[in-house]
Amino acid sequence: MTRDDLFQLFTRLASGAVSPEQALYSFQTQPVEELAQGVTLDTHRLARTGQGEVVYGPGKTIPQLKNCVQGLADAGQPVLVTRLSAAKGEALVEIFPDAVFHEHSGLLTLGFSLELDGPYPHSGECIVVTAGASDMGVALEAYGTACFFGLNCGLVSDVGVAGVHRLTPHIENLSKAKVLIVVAGMDGALPSVLAGLVPTPILGVPSTSGKDNMLGGVSSLMAMLNSCSPGVAAMNIDNGFGAAAFASKLCAK
Amino acid sequence: MTRDDLFQLFTRLASGAVSPEQALYSFQTQPVEELAQGVTLDTHRLARTGQGEVVYGPGKTIPQLKNCVQGLADAGQPVLVTRLSAAKGEALVEIFPDAVFHEHSGLLTLGFSLELDGPYPHSGECIVVTAGASDMGVALEAYGTACFFGLNCGLVSDVGVAGVHRLTPHIENLSKAKVLIVVAGMDGALPSVLAGLVPTPILGVPSTSGKDNMLGGVSSLMAMLNSCSPGVAAMNIDNGFGAAAFASKLCAK
Amino acid sequence: MTRDDLFQLFTRLASGAVSPEQALYSFQTQPVEELAQGVTLDTHRLARTGQGEVVYGPGKTIPQLKNCVQGLADAGQPVLVTRLSAAKGEALVEIFPDAVFHEHSGLLTLGFSLELDGPYPHSGECIVVTAGASDMGVALEAYGTACFFGLNCGLVSDVGVAGVHRLTPHIENLSKAKVLIVVAGMDGALPSVLAGLVPTPILGVPSTSGKDNMLGGVSSLMAMLNSCSPGVAAMNIDNGFGAAAFASKLCAK
Amino acid sequence: MTRDDLFQLFTRLASGAVSPEQALYSFQTQPVEELAQGVTLDTHRLARTGQGEVVYGPGKTIPQLKNCVQGLADAGQPVLVTRLSAAKGEALVEIFPDAVFHEHSGLLTLGFSLELDGPYPHSGECIVVTAGASDMGVALEAYGTACFFGLNCGLVSDVGVAGVHRLTPHIENLSKAKVLIVVAGMDGALPSVLAGLVPTPILGVPSTSGKDNMLGGVSSLMAMLNSCSPGVAAMNIDNGFGAAAFASKLCAK
Amino acid sequence: MTRDDLFQLFTRLASGAVSPEQALYSFQTQPVEELAQGVTLDTHRLARTGQGEVVYGPGKTIPQLKNCVQGLADAGQPVLVTRLSAAKGEALVEIFPDAVFHEHSGLLTLGFSLELDGPYPHSGECIVVTAGASDMGVALEAYGTACFFGLNCGLVSDVGVAGVHRLTPHIENLSKAKVLIVVAGMDGALPSVLAGLVPTPILGVPSTSGKDNMLGGVSSLMAMLNSCSPGVAAMNIDNGFGAAAFASKLCAK
Amino acid sequence: MTRDDLFQLFTRLASGAVSPEQALYSFQTQPVEELAQGVTLDTHRLARTGQGEVVYGPGKTIPQLKNCVQGLADAGQPVLVTRLSAAKGEALVEIFPDAVFHEHSGLLTLGFSLELDGPYPHSGECIVVTAGASDMGVALEAYGTACFFGLNCGLVSDVGVAGVHRLTPHIENLSKAKVLIVVAGMDGALPSVLAGLVPTPILGVPSTSGKDNMLGGVSSLMAMLNSCSPGVAAMNIDNGFGAAAFASKLCAK
Amino acid sequence: MTRDDLFQLFTRLASGAVSPEQALYSFQTQPVEELAQGVTLDTHRLARTGQGEVVYGPGKTIPQLKNCVQGLADAGQPVLVTRLSAAKGEALVEIFPDAVFHEHSGLLTLGFSLELDGPYPHSGECIVVTAGASDMGVALEAYGTACFFGLNCGLVSDVGVAGVHRLTPHIENLSKAKVLIVVAGMDGALPSVLAGLVPTPILGVPSTSGKDNMLGGVSSLMAMLNSCSPGVAAMNIDNGFGAAAFASKLCAK
Amino acid sequence: MTRDDLFQLFTRLASGAVSPEQALYSFQTQPVEELAQGVTLDTHRLARTGQGEVVYGPGKTIPQLKNCVQGLADAGQPVLVTRLSAAKGEALVEIFPDAVFHEHSGLLTLGFSLELDGPYPHSGECIVVTAGASDMGVALEAYGTACFFGLNCGLVSDVGVAGVHRLTPHIENLSKAKVLIVVAGMDGALPSVLAGLVPTPILGVPSTSGKDNMLGGVSSLMAMLNSCSPGVAAMNIDNGFGAAAFASKLCAK
Repeated sequence: MTRDDLFQLFTRLASGAVSPEQALYSFQTQPVEELAQGVTLDTHRLARTGQGEVVYGPGKTIPQLKNCVQGLADAGQPVLVTRLSAAKGEALVEIFPDAVFHEHSGLLTLGFSLELDGPYPHSGECIVVTAGASDMGVALEAYGTACFFGLNCGLVSDVGVAGVHRLTPHIENLSKAKVLIVVAGMDGALPSVLAGLVPTPILGVPSTSGKDNMLGGVSSLMAMLNSCSPGVAAMNIDNGFGAAAFASKLCAK
Repeated sequence: MTRDDLFQLFTRLASGAVSPEQALYSFQTQPVEELAQGVTLDTHRLARTGQGEVVYGPGKTIPQLKNCVQGLADAGQPVLVTRLSAAKGEALVEIFPDAVFHEHSGLLTLGFSLELDGPYPHSGECIVVTAGASDMGVALEAYGTACFFGLNCGLVSDVGVAGVHRLTPHIENLSKAKVLIVVAGMDGALPSVLAGLVPTPILGVPSTSGKDNMLGGVSSLMAMLNSCSPGVAAMNIDNGFGAAAFASKLCAK
Repeated sequence: MTRDDLFQLFTRLASGAVSPEQALYSFQTQPVEELAQGVTLDTHRLARTGQGEVVYGPGKTIPQLKNCVQGLADAGQPVLVTRLSAAKGEALVEIFPDAVFHEHSGLLTLGFSLELDGPYPHSGECIVVTAGASDMGVALEAYGTACFFGLNCGLVSDVGVAGVHRLTPHIENLSKAKVLIVVAGMDGALPSVLAGLVPTPILGVPSTSGKDNMLGGVSSLMAMLNSCSPGVAAMNIDNGFGAAAFASKLCAK
Repeated sequence: MTRDDLFQLFTRLASGAVSPEQALYSFQTQPVEELAQGVTLDTHRLARTGQGEVVYGPGKTIPQLKNCVQGLADAGQPVLVTRLSAAKGEALVEIFPDAVFHEHSGLLTLGFSLELDGPYPHSGECIVVTAGASDMGVALEAYGTACFFGLNCGLVSDVGVAGVHRLTPHIENLSKAKVLIVVAGMDGALPSVLAGLVPTPILGVPSTSGKDNMLGGVSSLMAMLNSCSPGVAAMNIDNGFGAAAFASKLCAK
Repeated sequence: MTRDDLFQLFTRLASGAVSPEQALYSFQTQPVEELAQGVTLDTHRLARTGQGEVVYGPGKTIPQLKNCVQGLADAGQPVLVTRLSAAKGEALVEIFPDAVFHEHSGLLTLGFSLELDGPYPHSGECIVVTAGASDMGVALEAYGTACFFGLNCGLVSDVGVAGVHRLTPHIENLSKAKVLIVVAGMDGALPSVLAGLVPTPILGVPSTSGKDNMLGGVSSLMAMLNSCSPGVAAMNIDNGFGAAAFASKLCAK
Repeated sequence: MTRDDLFQLFTRLASGAVSPEQALYSFQTQPVEELAQGVTLDTHRLARTGQGEVVYGPGKTIPQLKNCVQGLADAGQPVLVTRLSAAKGEALVEIFPDAVFHEHSGLLTLGFSLELDGPYPHSGECIVVTAGASDMGVALEAYGTACFFGLNCGLVSDVGVAGVHRLTPHIENLSKAKVLIVVAGMDGALPSVLAGLVPTPILGVPSTSGKDNMLGGVSSLMAMLNSCSPGVAAMNIDNGFGAAAFASKLCAK
Repeated sequence: MTRDDLFQLFTRLASGAVSPEQALYSFQTQPVEELAQGVTLDTHRLARTGQGEVVYGPGKTIPQLKNCVQGLADAGQPVLVTRLSAAKGEALVEIFPDAVFHEHSGLLTLGFSLELDGPYPHSGECIVVTAGASDMGVALEAYGTACFFGLNCGLVSDVGVAGVHRLTPHIENLSKAKVLIVVAGMDGALPSVLAGLVPTPILGVPSTSGKDNMLGGVSSLMAMLNSCSPGVAAMNIDNGFGAAAFASKLCAK
Repeated sequence: MTRDDLFQLFTRLASGAVSPEQALYSFQTQPVEELAQGVTLDTHRLARTGQGEVVYGPGKTIPQLKNCVQGLADAGQPVLVTRLSAAKGEALVEIFPDAVFHEHSGLLTLGFSLELDGPYPHSGECIVVTAGASDMGVALEAYGTACFFGLNCGLVSDVGVAGVHRLTPHIENLSKAKVLIVVAGMDGALPSVLAGLVPTPILGVPSTSGKDNMLGGVSSLMAMLNSCSPGVAAMNIDNGFGAAAFASKLCAK
């Protein structure tokens, strides 16, 4: 309920169009829809904020996920579910035969089509960059989510600092973008190096790169938080979705 | 053995009703019952403290769990086992066909009936509140345990701060309760926001919300410990049982 | 602004007593008072929640603290400032000669009198218990804050588990209280032992006990979070104020 | 040396305007200026990136800081030094009598004027928001740096979630801005709540708020990394400078 | 090679019984036996230190474990392997049909018989005490190892501080022992309480108690390291073997 | 109050020598002495456990410390205070001119004489060993406390593994002792090496060695907890007092 | 592209042999080869640095790994893949029947033969040393990688400090080597002891030794970082590959 | 005592030149010199290992430091003390007027001259490189120690990845060196970038860079341990001395 909604409600109250009791009731109950299994769906978010509700997969049971997907589909909205394991993804595809599960990124879509198998454009208002091939799972979560939010998005992969020269052909495109999402594991050095080379603000996404490094991604996260180059902000470890959501808000301004 | 028991024992000793040797013996051995497999059951706890013994599932073998359940049942007490995996829960139901295993909450009951599938009352002397649908497992552990301890308990789910307006219809009930149990993962911000809105003391239960976040629930725990709103105390991560036990003691006062 | 205030505002709007523009203005600006130095004082909190605003000392400059104290005094409210260093406490007493600074607890009062030098009552609806004499600073913060909030509060000190027998004379009073605030450093074992002996819910406050232990109080905090006895909730390290605020809300129910 | 510079150099080489030896020499030595004390100043950065070099104060000796300030002043550039202790700030003002040291923010300026004592505008393309008055030091570092980079910047202070209603009068301005810098300590809940209310992307800056909380700001940092509301990215603890630098790059796009 | 061996070698050298070359050779090669798979077995340890070599299971492949067991058996020594998973334990029993695998404790024995199924003696020069039934796996590792080293060992289980009175009947035996091994998870409070009640030195063994607590056993370890009662030393988490080895050295003095 | 005391009390009750009320009273109040400032002194501990009360310095104010010292002196007991800063130590010597403050070890004695300036005996039933000269402060705390508890104690210093040959002349004495207290910082390797060379059980005391290493003494503590040589138990960082208390209990058996 | 390449390019530009456009193109695109699945292969690395590209296994999908292996094989290079699980290793052997998978070390080779089953030479310019048999997996990763890079490498295993005498026969060879790679878990004491005995620089590789110790290898890592003997540098936990790469660069000097 | 010394001793024993008793005595006592204050000086280390003993300053009292310096000077050796605070450094210069204290690096020299004020050579067999001017303190500790050990050492400062082009003029010298010591704080990215550009092995030294970053240097340490470029080994935080000692051993091979 935005400030405008509030003012309209007050105006209608002042004109007698609604009674105080009705106002209070509508104020309290409008945008919330309680489903079974403890799920309270926010189907009005797309209209309110311009970003539709995205279903976060972890910790939800299959019946809960089914309720969320069904609820959004019933509201006529495109559906995106994130961080699904293969087992959960396949279970949902059995329930919703029109849904598509993308295992590498853990994304499931319904009523919306994503092309995640490449080749990828190397330019866009938002470009996802990865340090290594191991970072592709996280990068595809960001890339797919950005596409879901309507961004013109590119993807450049495997150009980490162990061979800085691999960055050269992409500097021009990266400089033109409005924001970069840079996924890197291990030493997390790529955002710092890029921020010293291009004027574009950088959202660093630390990745666990196969979950085989010391303290799973914490090293990379700390490097991004402590970047010696100005212009880097950090997302949580492996949080490709969050980076795309931030980029979407930024590009809408 | 309470202070009153001690005084009675002294009185009977002073009157010669028991000898010093008998007193010492009864003092030492009364409430303890040693079973096989290293289990020492405290079947007198219900009489002593008003809270019956609850069996903590993790780390116990099936034979140990069987002994605990059988021992409590033999003492004529209702049985609650917590934190059971599906495998252990099913094994116990095979041994005790009258027992019921609730997989989402990890609770097993015998000689006592829990209704955990909803719909849930939205009011009560104690209300369990969750930030997200992913928190339902922990919330149901708290809700089920509170019912086991005899509390008049409600449950309101999926009303986290990403959409604060979802809280509005519940403020009145939450203000009337004696204590709230607020389960939240991720940023753990819900207890702080609620404590600024209602006069009810809040037991924050950080949840791991699917165990896919950085440092599993520690973020949420730290937020609750550092709450900027007075009136929040913290339970350990995912400890729905402990919150219900605290609430039970508080409501009995 | 409570639900009742909102309903009254709506009623006045519906009757034309206020215009929509006036309503929106009053809705937005009423309880907030912006002072210099970035301070926004909430002088309406006492009326709204029953607990007056308490000034948190750390991180504030002397000019900021002066503004806060003056603002509350100007509103005719009693003043409590917490966590003051000796240097800041003395500086404020120079500015406000009627204020009293209690160095051991770090509390400063104005327009309100605290008796913090003992002897302390051993009973009350809330009793502060300490494991060691080193915990007195934190205990006095809790005790003083509880008195400020109007609780009937007791204090029992130096009765930790290294000599469990020291607890015996206090068990009766501790059992009668509505809530205990138990301050303990080192192994933090006292809340667990007490929770096995009395039916009273316990707010554990881990203390740094002179800041000379491993990982300053974290050991004690973790023990309280992992208490094996049901009925213990944890406050943050050294957070005597928070425990008293929680107890105050609880006793007001 | 940008891509355009490189192309020009190649063109001049191809035309014989410079020899290969000269090209190599200029390629290597142009923008770097080695001073005494191990300082290598990058006076060309303003021309190259649009952001002048800012001197990071910690870990530098007074002679090193003197060299940095003198070098930038000699190059005719405005000077900003960050994170200066009072002792270092005063020592530099003695050396450079025209410099101004702002103790609350730790900033020193020369050849450039900052107005940091308020009152502050409540609107702008970038708005700094603080949860508490204790966060003002960090907030002023961000505000001052943003002004140094030429942003139209506002500041709203002490509006944390312990009293959410304090946010109401500012929602409209916050919604219109291109980016918010939100400084919060303790539970770090303000960015999550704001991100659920406004469409503006948010740079969260965890603060240590007086360095008296558990694990100095880590709690707040983790809350921002784990924000349940999409649209939040995190800066390092107390890193007001970095947030302003990111905002500056973003607003220049 | 002890100091006496060295002196004898010098004497034989001085008398010409061995040449310098022979001495050097024997000095270097005597007690080491290299097997395949990177295993270097120390079969002389039993004679040298009174404690036979015990095989540490984790991280060894089945071929490595087979070599270790065979090597000790070939040297005519009793064999004890620790920390075996069920899969590895069963694989070894298939290879060595006379071996016995004790799943609850993870121990495997060959040429030596352990009785680990209870009932257990409640007295001895060394007594293993557990706080809960969940601690039995670690306790049996300690108890079995102590028996392997020839100690007269007792075991008392499930007597933690949630019900301190359960300790009473055992105080006399615990006071008479030379050393206690106290296994506790969660808050790890039992060693502190016991050390205030008996004059016996206590080896605290923190346990993970089903690996379901925060930071697996670290809480309990820190409590033991920070014990407020003098007379407690700590072993690593779940290290029942190490406690028994320490106790064995202590009782041999 | 030991088991024997309890039996005697029961006998006197049974014979009518005391009434139940008197019994209860004596049971509750006997060994506790409450002083001002929140101090509860346990002057009966020497008689009860054979170890007199030792005053732990950190976190106590000067008035609290004065009360503790005076209380013990009034009870005719020798006084040992540990972990005193130079400022506190000197303040106490001004109050108690007969007291002696040993700055290097932080110990203060009254009514008891310690010789802490060397040379030190190299043998004893308990021997304190240090890896480096930087460990002497902690070692002297252990050595002085052991002497206070009546142990025949030796001290061997600066024989760490950077030059293992320095250990050779001491192996014989170290093998004969009943227990070793080994103080080491940095890599904490000395206890592991010694435990492979001598049959004596080893109490490892990690030291911060000047507080200039990574994470205080945590590195050394973890090495001792993870010792690959059986026979090592760990005390907390810098806890020389605790090691001496454990050794004293052990040698009294 | 080395400095020499750059000078040659400038010379050809100056002579008109290439145009500026051609120069820029060649500067940007030469050594990078983009494959499907987000893989960018650096097949020129062998020529450029003397070390061929090694494929890091974790986090890559089977299709990605297949692309990497095929790409290197197509370029006529020997292939080494590290850190492969048994499942991935076997999947690759099915795709590339000439490849060999070494399960204990997690290495896969193609077009290159490794002998990893022992017996191992005890001397070489580089010698891998292990503290225990559990460290063999990591040691074989280092040994195999060193052989792949062309080093003359030895391996000595299971000679940890629990029995220091096992080191004696190897001291001469270890002193002659140019560098040692010392793999140790638990207390990580072996590098410190060795660095006090031989003049050879030591690369410490902390190992998780079966992943059953506290904080998986962190203890060992910290010991190596805090080594009291000069001459020890640390690799990351279990990073045998990295140690061999460092040794290879060192021996090539 | 090296293997050759041992063989000589055996030969003299075999020939009767020394008796067994004399041999044992000389074996035990030769290289150790016990001084007062718990200091055991190893004046033979220079002869034995080629590296003279260096005195580690932290944790030593002034009398201990005086003994160490005097002992080495008496043995005719040059003296280097590391990590001295200004207070300790000045105290020692008062005692030893010929000593020189270098405050920026914390080094004190006697009987040996260091030139630490620059300008510094940019080439050498070992080159110290710093990312920022704040790293100079640690860099000078490394540079001074390397000179003390006789290395031909260079120093290049303030060339971090925020402006990668600053590295260009130094690549040739860095490629020719035998080893690089790279000091970097914050994101610690410089070693990774350099290792991708030069064939020289790199010792990364994480620095705290003014101790104002999150978790003081841990971020930088983790980045170096997780370097994505092969050829980087890590020293402990701020351990310039250790890096120089490793480099010295490496260059002597």
